Amino acid sequence: MGSSKDQKLWGGRFEQPVDRLMARFNASIGFDRRLAAQDIRASSAHARMLARQGIISDQDAEAIVEGLAQVGREIAEGRLAWRTELEDIHTHIEARLAEIIGEPAGRLHTARSRNDQVATDLRLWVLDAGADLRVALGDYQRALVGLAESQGQAIMPGYTHLQRAQPVLLGHHLLAYEQMAQRDGERLAQCLARAARLPLGAAALAGTPHPVDPQWLAGELGLAGPCANSLDAVSDRDFAAEFLFVLSLIQVHLSRLAEELVLWSSLEFGFVTLPEAFATGSSIMPQKKNPDAAELVRAKTGRVLGHLMALCTMLKGQPLAYNKDLQEDKEPLFDAFDTVHDSLLVMAPMLGTLTVHPGRMRTAVEQGFLEATELADYLVEKGLPFRQAHRLAGQAVLLAEKSERTLAQIGLEEYRSLCDKIEDDIYRRLTPEHGVDSRTSPGGTARHNLAAALKEARERLWPRE
Amino acid sequence: MGSSKDQKLWGGRFEQPVDRLMARFNASIGFDRRLAAQDIRASSAHARMLARQGIISDQDAEAIVEGLAQVGREIAEGRLAWRTELEDIHTHIEARLAEIIGEPAGRLHTARSRNDQVATDLRLWVLDAGADLRVALGDYQRALVGLAESQGQAIMPGYTHLQRAQPVLLGHHLLAYEQMAQRDGERLAQCLARAARLPLGAAALAGTPHPVDPQWLAGELGLAGPCANSLDAVSDRDFAAEFLFVLSLIQVHLSRLAEELVLWSSLEFGFVTLPEAFATGSSIMPQKKNPDAAELVRAKTGRVLGHLMALCTMLKGQPLAYNKDLQEDKEPLFDAFDTVHDSLLVMAPMLGTLTVHPGRMRTAVEQGFLEATELADYLVEKGLPFRQAHRLAGQAVLLAEKSERTLAQIGLEEYRSLCDKIEDDIYRRLTPEHGVDSRTSPGGTARHNLAAALKEARERLWPRE
Amino acid sequence: MGSSKDQKLWGGRFEQPVDRLMARFNASIGFDRRLAAQDIRASSAHARMLARQGIISDQDAEAIVEGLAQVGREIAEGRLAWRTELEDIHTHIEARLAEIIGEPAGRLHTARSRNDQVATDLRLWVLDAGADLRVALGDYQRALVGLAESQGQAIMPGYTHLQRAQPVLLGHHLLAYEQMAQRDGERLAQCLARAARLPLGAAALAGTPHPVDPQWLAGELGLAGPCANSLDAVSDRDFAAEFLFVLSLIQVHLSRLAEELVLWSSLEFGFVTLPEAFATGSSIMPQKKNPDAAELVRAKTGRVLGHLMALCTMLKGQPLAYNKDLQEDKEPLFDAFDTVHDSLLVMAPMLGTLTVHPGRMRTAVEQGFLEATELADYLVEKGLPFRQAHRLAGQAVLLAEKSERTLAQIGLEEYRSLCDKIEDDIYRRLTPEHGVDSRTSPGGTARHNLAAALKEARERLWPRE
Amino acid sequence: MGSSKDQKLWGGRFEQPVDRLMARFNASIGFDRRLAAQDIRASSAHARMLARQGIISDQDAEAIVEGLAQVGREIAEGRLAWRTELEDIHTHIEARLAEIIGEPAGRLHTARSRNDQVATDLRLWVLDAGADLRVALGDYQRALVGLAESQGQAIMPGYTHLQRAQPVLLGHHLLAYEQMAQRDGERLAQCLARAARLPLGAAALAGTPHPVDPQWLAGELGLAGPCANSLDAVSDRDFAAEFLFVLSLIQVHLSRLAEELVLWSSLEFGFVTLPEAFATGSSIMPQKKNPDAAELVRAKTGRVLGHLMALCTMLKGQPLAYNKDLQEDKEPLFDAFDTVHDSLLVMAPMLGTLTVHPGRMRTAVEQGFLEATELADYLVEKGLPFRQAHRLAGQAVLLAEKSERTLAQIGLEEYRSLCDKIEDDIYRRLTPEHGVDSRTSPGGTARHNLAAALKEARERLWPRE
Repeated sequence: MGSSKDQKLWGGRFEQPVDRLMARFNASIGFDRRLAAQDIRASSAHARMLARQGIISDQDAEAIVEGLAQVGREIAEGRLAWRTELEDIHTHIEARLAEIIGEPAGRLHTARSRNDQVATDLRLWVLDAGADLRVALGDYQRALVGLAESQGQAIMPGYTHLQRAQPVLLGHHLLAYEQMAQRDGERLAQCLARAARLPLGAAALAGTPHPVDPQWLAGELGLAGPCANSLDAVSDRDFAAEFLFVLSLIQVHLSRLAEELVLWSSLEFGFVTLPEAFATGSSIMPQKKNPDAAELVRAKTGRVLGHLMALCTMLKGQPLAYNKDLQEDKEPLFDAFDTVHDSLLVMAPMLGTLTVHPGRMRTAVEQGFLEATELADYLVEKGLPFRQAHRLAGQAVLLAEKSERTLAQIGLEEYRSLCDKIEDDIYRRLTPEHGVDSRTSPGGTARHNLAAALKEARERLWPRE
Repeated sequence: MGSSKDQKLWGGRFEQPVDRLMARFNASIGFDRRLAAQDIRASSAHARMLARQGIISDQDAEAIVEGLAQVGREIAEGRLAWRTELEDIHTHIEARLAEIIGEPAGRLHTARSRNDQVATDLRLWVLDAGADLRVALGDYQRALVGLAESQGQAIMPGYTHLQRAQPVLLGHHLLAYEQMAQRDGERLAQCLARAARLPLGAAALAGTPHPVDPQWLAGELGLAGPCANSLDAVSDRDFAAEFLFVLSLIQVHLSRLAEELVLWSSLEFGFVTLPEAFATGSSIMPQKKNPDAAELVRAKTGRVLGHLMALCTMLKGQPLAYNKDLQEDKEPLFDAFDTVHDSLLVMAPMLGTLTVHPGRMRTAVEQGFLEATELADYLVEKGLPFRQAHRLAGQAVLLAEKSERTLAQIGLEEYRSLCDKIEDDIYRRLTPEHGVDSRTSPGGTARHNLAAALKEARERLWPRE
Repeated sequence: MGSSKDQKLWGGRFEQPVDRLMARFNASIGFDRRLAAQDIRASSAHARMLARQGIISDQDAEAIVEGLAQVGREIAEGRLAWRTELEDIHTHIEARLAEIIGEPAGRLHTARSRNDQVATDLRLWVLDAGADLRVALGDYQRALVGLAESQGQAIMPGYTHLQRAQPVLLGHHLLAYEQMAQRDGERLAQCLARAARLPLGAAALAGTPHPVDPQWLAGELGLAGPCANSLDAVSDRDFAAEFLFVLSLIQVHLSRLAEELVLWSSLEFGFVTLPEAFATGSSIMPQKKNPDAAELVRAKTGRVLGHLMALCTMLKGQPLAYNKDLQEDKEPLFDAFDTVHDSLLVMAPMLGTLTVHPGRMRTAVEQGFLEATELADYLVEKGLPFRQAHRLAGQAVLLAEKSERTLAQIGLEEYRSLCDKIEDDIYRRLTPEHGVDSRTSPGGTARHNLAAALKEARERLWPRE
Repeated sequence: MGSSKDQKLWGGRFEQPVDRLMARFNASIGFDRRLAAQDIRASSAHARMLARQGIISDQDAEAIVEGLAQVGREIAEGRLAWRTELEDIHTHIEARLAEIIGEPAGRLHTARSRNDQVATDLRLWVLDAGADLRVALGDYQRALVGLAESQGQAIMPGYTHLQRAQPVLLGHHLLAYEQMAQRDGERLAQCLARAARLPLGAAALAGTPHPVDPQWLAGELGLAGPCANSLDAVSDRDFAAEFLFVLSLIQVHLSRLAEELVLWSSLEFGFVTLPEAFATGSSIMPQKKNPDAAELVRAKTGRVLGHLMALCTMLKGQPLAYNKDLQEDKEPLFDAFDTVHDSLLVMAPMLGTLTVHPGRMRTAVEQGFLEATELADYLVEKGLPFRQAHRLAGQAVLLAEKSERTLAQIGLEEYRSLCDKIEDDIYRRLTPEHGVDSRTSPGGTARHNLAAALKEARERLWPRE
């Protein structure tokens, strides 16, 4: 393994070969190969900057840029073999570059270090992943709005404590999730804007004596500008932690909808039938149709939260500047992104092909005394203090429950024995439609509110022709 | 306990008294009393809104507002007794209001529910706590800058892997932490802006039929506007999770500085002496002076992260809309804020009264071959490819180490036997001052960079006269 | 505050008074007062050991033991005022002891340090808390078994993926939770046995020159023996982490049952009615009866997990031996214990007073083709390979579903057109009772299995007369 | 993809092909292939049990067992291609078995379900992994003891708060870690014993009507017996959570030693030189020798804790019995095991080849007034109460520090002006050797204690010849 020693970037000082086990433990090529595109992009721009500043020659820069492009193609086509003794993606690319273009390859690492290089690559990756995430999030939002538009007029029970509470429109319910996603998108955009800084130029930790131009380089890479402090540049992983948090909250939101899909597709609720493409059967029970996709989305919340926790725990108590601990930043990030991205990709078409059963929803609305609040509000209008009205409505519910009737089935005389201010107009109030349409406060479930909310969402989420 | 039953807001339907144990388990008065000021503020504004909209009379509103003010004074002065059977702060305030003003108290809860009320109170609390946090964070940033201004010219070893790497200015090192805090402040401001929405008007979950004006009410409470969807309004705790994340990252940053203070005040490093006010002695070892404050700041990272995890885990898989689970949102939030706020309050004066030992730092810089990168850079300037230069510098280090010399103590001939391009001008390069001042890249540690960074920080962090 | 300085145990070396803010930050009296009983117990035994070994006089030991007893009474009766400047419970007790007995109080701290003292106190607390937990866990187990005995013959749908799968006995379902609790109890006992080691004798970190007898002392305190290594003795918090894990898993188990209670008490399931004592109403919706207790139990899982995470994160990367960070071990432990203990206390009577609706369960069993596995098993008995049998049963379900019939309502001819091996005896197989009683494999839901399991549980959980 | 549909085990009921994206999301073959050996082992034993009970014919069982053996060889040799549409390892094995032996393959799944099958496989995997872990843990313990035997007589500063506290033997320090590992091993053994239960026989959730013999099957698989409750059998993941906790605590312990190795190998401490095989260089700084292995071990604590958190969060609130969420149990388990196992594998040889610098340790012991406790103890022997002795020793330290002397360099007259009970015999007490050897309490650092502890460890950890 003497040859691999020579290929290590830091071999000069060492007299013994690195232990094979340690090589495996230390190596990151198993996962950081995912940074290949970003590494090549950043290295190409770095080489061009070096030439532009006269630090290397134009010919060398040209050779490097072309060589890197070739390496990039080889990696994309799966033609580059990964070797543990080359440790990481950066060494692989540099070693292959040296094979292709020879001596000029040695000049690429001028005025930079692994520390600022890897921090740059990871930021670029977060920005690329973040862009993909925004697309997937948008598709999910449009799926919510699409379903709210097509099926949203169905009246269903709104729940608190999983007890039927008041009638709401399905569309109103779905748009609650769209609001969550909208905040997620806002957080994501702010996170990405903060991530768009360039560590290159910080070198190992203290900056470089070479007359680099990180401002120009940042521009080339689509970043807002260089990091303001070199020690911070190489050791900051805030962008990773923040991205993980954004991902965590998206998954938490998805887990809530997933839970509802599991509930709604149970025989007990029966509000929806999941598309067969997103359910599976049982190896033993032929009648089963299981909401696997929704269950997995729900379960994966733990996974994403675990990754957030892993990264933050890793960062705790680290002295400046770069420590090897930071190598542990990548896997949680990669896996959390894949998990959330896939979950969004699955949820959107699942919503788009969901079968809604408005009749089952309606039946559910009619049981459970969801009009009790209406009755209380009616009494308030008649001049009773709210607390007293609430108490009387509670007594009416008890009366109905004991006699197995709905509130609408209680006779006027019975009502008047509870409170003589109740009149015949009460019955008009005890319908689901009235329950929905009377909630006219901004953000309430009234039908005209939903129409306005859908219009706003459509304008926001669909690009104008 | 019949009387307590009558005081419960939801007693009408129930026929049996609530079990004592359950009362304790269910009660939140032990911690949500902390929302008293916010609850009274929101209730006063709500009452005025109700009168403004003609939903209650002006006299009732006036009585409510004055009564609430009195309740607020009683609470502030510790004159209101807390009773478990009254469950939560909201019931305490309402019950006391009823004692003071009688029947009109019953009208306050018109057009709202506990669900939107508690969500409103908690958002107001986050905004208040966030404002306190910004002040404490600013003080901490100013303490960092102040120390960087007064002691920042000291040259210390910059570390990677806790190995001495390259010389840096103490001021440069401190400003890395200021950068972290600056990002923390940015995240905090964005979190608070997102939190500044009004849930009131959502009532239990579906909106209210009363002609409320949440837009006006939001303005009265300093909020940007009402929540767009009532189901989301009562069940959204994104603002709590995001605030916890902002707090977590601040504490992670503090833990890194705390770790360095622990290291630096050890006899081994000896870079600083902690002010006695922030250290403690040992009950058994008379010579000890322990960095307790820094250790606690470091340790409390786990606590804040644990609270973030607790909240997110609680939110996972909750169907819409309000569930009692959400009551568990408060304690992690309160404790995390207290922890981070106190940590900032402690760190600022600890930095302000730190004794720095520039001599010990300088001694450390002179050992450990920190000029090896200089030597490599020198060889690059002489035309060697970086990789070869790096290898030669490594050999020089090995030579110096074996003969127990510094790089500056190696003779020119010895150098030239390594590489004949080395000339006499090499020695000028092998000083800490040159090491620092040559790092002129943007964000690098060169003295003129530090001066510019301090000027920028001062203008940003100190209000102009 | 000069006087408070003198009362500090480590004041000799310090020249300046400790900053007031720092005093608050550093102080643990706000929570470690909870260790008062353990501290006094351990100190009394320590004093008696010192006298027994001739390290202090018998008179001094007697004075100390009596004085400590008085301090203990004062604390128990709330007569000792807590003062932040006395930092922790240990200093409070020692300071008060000095007031009571004078000079001999100074001899109590011979041959020990805060480090071994606090580790001892916390272990004793864990053992005491663990004993309480075992009682509460046992009560919960007995409540499960009690309900399984009284209502367990009800046939309900067993679920997978929250889809009705196969009929099971309610008793069988409840005993699954009893199994979890049984494992919890086993883990708890092993955790406590491991915790029962004595740190005293380790002093600050290295042991003590005094001729102490920790073996005797351990016996006095009900512990198995002294810790084997003094550095480990003062820095080990495994017992705390393990106790937190045991607590976490109990709460995870409770959260599963709590989730089921929430589901079962929904109108959609309707399997149980929660006792009013463990449900609450709504401030706005008079008809609501919310499963608050179950929801809180479910939600608090995050809290306990967060505490486990907090402690483990705090421990990460701590060099030996004692660090102040360890002070952060107490609050997560105390709160996690309270949370889990209270949850058990609430769950047991909630189960004990639950109203079960066997009719609703039975209705649910009859819908959803739960006999499909029976059909497949029947076909296997007739000689078909399982996979083919499974496929045919799936086709029967599809047929029944499309014609809105149950499997028992499909005619024999229709069955025979699917597979001509089906005969008239099939109908006897398509009943819930057969579904239950045919599952005779060990651990299966057959009625005679349940009877045996209940007998085993009763013998295990109820002490013989 | 019609053909893949036919290969699905639950295809009978479904009319549409499963969406490609969903297939990927749902598939576990990417990770559960790791269960291949366990699945084949359990299936073989299951087939033999079925034949033994007369449920299938002996010929069929023989064909299955031989076929499975062939599949096992194909997998071991990498000759089986993984296909996403076959979802999981179980389906792959069963499909390949069908290709090899034809129709009898369909009888293997008799009397079992995926639910009990996958739970069995995972338990078997945990037991196998646990056995590997015990070996690695033992090697690590022996490495600690070996180093303590060879280098353990070196006197080093014992630290509290990272401040030098009292002299201790390096061997004593190392054995503290051995104690932690010993507890880890104990926890592991108890966890594995609890895991050794057989879910097979529970079938989907309720048991099976076939006359299976799980007791015999358990014996064949090396398990203690069948699970007592079928619902618990398919939904219990306690063994996974407990294994993750055991792994977490091992990694926490390793992180503490790793932190010390990072500190000790810094230039500031200089106590050890890491073997080159476990350190790496810098791509930019030729002089660097970085403790990468130790840093990675420290960092990976977050990763393991994150996996524990992920699993527990996933389990939270799951209703009985099996839910698809449980599929998320495997990846955290696999990765946590790999991480901890690799960390142990790395730590053992790193310790075994560590270069210790006793001279540097000794120098450190002589600075920092580590004999101050000796002085205090001396005064106690002379009859002073401990508190007063402690105060006087503190004054002596202050005096020495101000005059830049050690305690041994303070003259007798100066001492006697502090306390006239001090005599000439004090100087004999102020040596590191006396500091070490006087700590004779059980568990203390005295040399003869270390010898006894090493003897005990050697007998425990090395098998007798």
